[in-house]
Amino acid sequence: MRLDVVTIFPEYLDPLNVSLVGKARTRGQLDVHVHDLRDWTYDRHNTVDDTPYGGGPGMVMKTEPWGDALDSVLADGYEHGSHEPALIVPTPSGRPFTQELAVQLSERPWLIFTPARYEGIDRRVVDEYATRMPVYEVSIGDYVLAGGEAAVLVVTEAVARLLPGVLGNAESHRDDSFAPGAMANLLEGPVYTKPPAWRGRDIPDVLLSGHHGKIARWRRDEALRRTTLHRPDLIERCDPKAFDKKDREMLSILGWEPDPAGEPYGRFWRRTDGVEE
Amino acid sequence: MRLDVVTIFPEYLDPLNVSLVGKARTRGQLDVHVHDLRDWTYDRHNTVDDTPYGGGPGMVMKTEPWGDALDSVLADGYEHGSHEPALIVPTPSGRPFTQELAVQLSERPWLIFTPARYEGIDRRVVDEYATRMPVYEVSIGDYVLAGGEAAVLVVTEAVARLLPGVLGNAESHRDDSFAPGAMANLLEGPVYTKPPAWRGRDIPDVLLSGHHGKIARWRRDEALRRTTLHRPDLIERCDPKAFDKKDREMLSILGWEPDPAGEPYGRFWRRTDGVEE
Repeated sequence: MRLDVVTIFPEYLDPLNVSLVGKARTRGQLDVHVHDLRDWTYDRHNTVDDTPYGGGPGMVMKTEPWGDALDSVLADGYEHGSHEPALIVPTPSGRPFTQELAVQLSERPWLIFTPARYEGIDRRVVDEYATRMPVYEVSIGDYVLAGGEAAVLVVTEAVARLLPGVLGNAESHRDDSFAPGAMANLLEGPVYTKPPAWRGRDIPDVLLSGHHGKIARWRRDEALRRTTLHRPDLIERCDPKAFDKKDREMLSILGWEPDPAGEPYGRFWRRTDGVEE
Repeated sequence: MRLDVVTIFPEYLDPLNVSLVGKARTRGQLDVHVHDLRDWTYDRHNTVDDTPYGGGPGMVMKTEPWGDALDSVLADGYEHGSHEPALIVPTPSGRPFTQELAVQLSERPWLIFTPARYEGIDRRVVDEYATRMPVYEVSIGDYVLAGGEAAVLVVTEAVARLLPGVLGNAESHRDDSFAPGAMANLLEGPVYTKPPAWRGRDIPDVLLSGHHGKIARWRRDEALRRTTLHRPDLIERCDPKAFDKKDREMLSILGWEPDPAGEPYGRFWRRTDGVEE
């Protein structure tokens, strides 16, 4: 996979040399190019922004440097069809970046990222390149950053670890939170390793029992406990068919019951005390 | 504000020297310490992980290095009360990191981050330090990363820009997506700057009209349009009282209507075509 990033803070992308992404580059699994947007400015102040039309606070990134930068990146390899890149525009106004989208993006040959600063990029830049390639405007979460560079690191890491051969242990995908499969829509519970006692704290006895069924049940119960605590929104949306009798008993103990009236709203479960989170 | 980060990839945190966070450090508004977890290992392989109790794939980070590292960080300044730190544990099993939480954290004097790798940290570490300080287990979004370091960059940047004097223009907070106020729960629409024509693309006429009321209305309509497109979940949850007559007309054009039956579920609006997103 090829990745290009155009930014006014190229050094912010230095973590792409480290750890999983850095190793994937060394192995030739990822071909990463970081470009300084200011290389496509032609005034002596290297101006990339100007005041917004219509007034208001903040500055808007200008069309010309972005247009020239993207043309230059595309000139180096663009072909309509099989080697067509996708443009990834990190913005708080984007659609949520999810594991499902990470999987989709991991199947593409080439991603081009345009992390912005200030109030964002003049809209015409996205409109222009959307005529030539798919554009994904994505938000990594409901919080405000100073710029899109941190989002590029997040998206890159989420995508890179899904590429064939990048993760050491192929099995490690299977138990991921948010991965399809048995734990779909449940958060993972606590994990433990040696020593069995530390500062007066013992690991749960069941983990030493050697009884695979009991261990699996305990993990499932802990996943249910943690999900009701931290992500009641995920429990609410769980299809009741995803839960067996023991799951339902645990959910009842945790204070949850089926909510038939909520089904048209995709809310299959409700708290028995009626409290909204 | 003081920040400590304990990690096995200290170089991943180099972006904390760049841009907004870097400048805040230079000005003395942020005091950042990045520590290498392996400094608290005592075997010649600098082991930080071991196999999980109960079996299964992946590795779990051990109690001892984390315990010794955190003791060492705390020994350098911990006081119960006014200078008490908070422990920020990035994990996909955490509660969602939101702008509201960023605001809360920005009011604390000291944050200590424990970005993990592999399957996470032995649970007893959080249990131990939760007796001494508040612990926030946070997830920055519904996707899986290779480790918590990218999440530390995200949380740090979201928090740092809220500190007094860090952002150049105090007004810039007000129009943030997800900020309290007029645009609460709406995404921002498109922005434009000079030149008025670029590659055959003109800016919308209204932005040159000089008519403040019309410009405000246009921006509001564009925010509604963008939010229905990318975040129908936000529209659904909007209190109808937050919308005036013109908002409701625009929502109707966009294919949304009030949903009185959804109110118990916090779903105040529904698509008129009945399609679920």
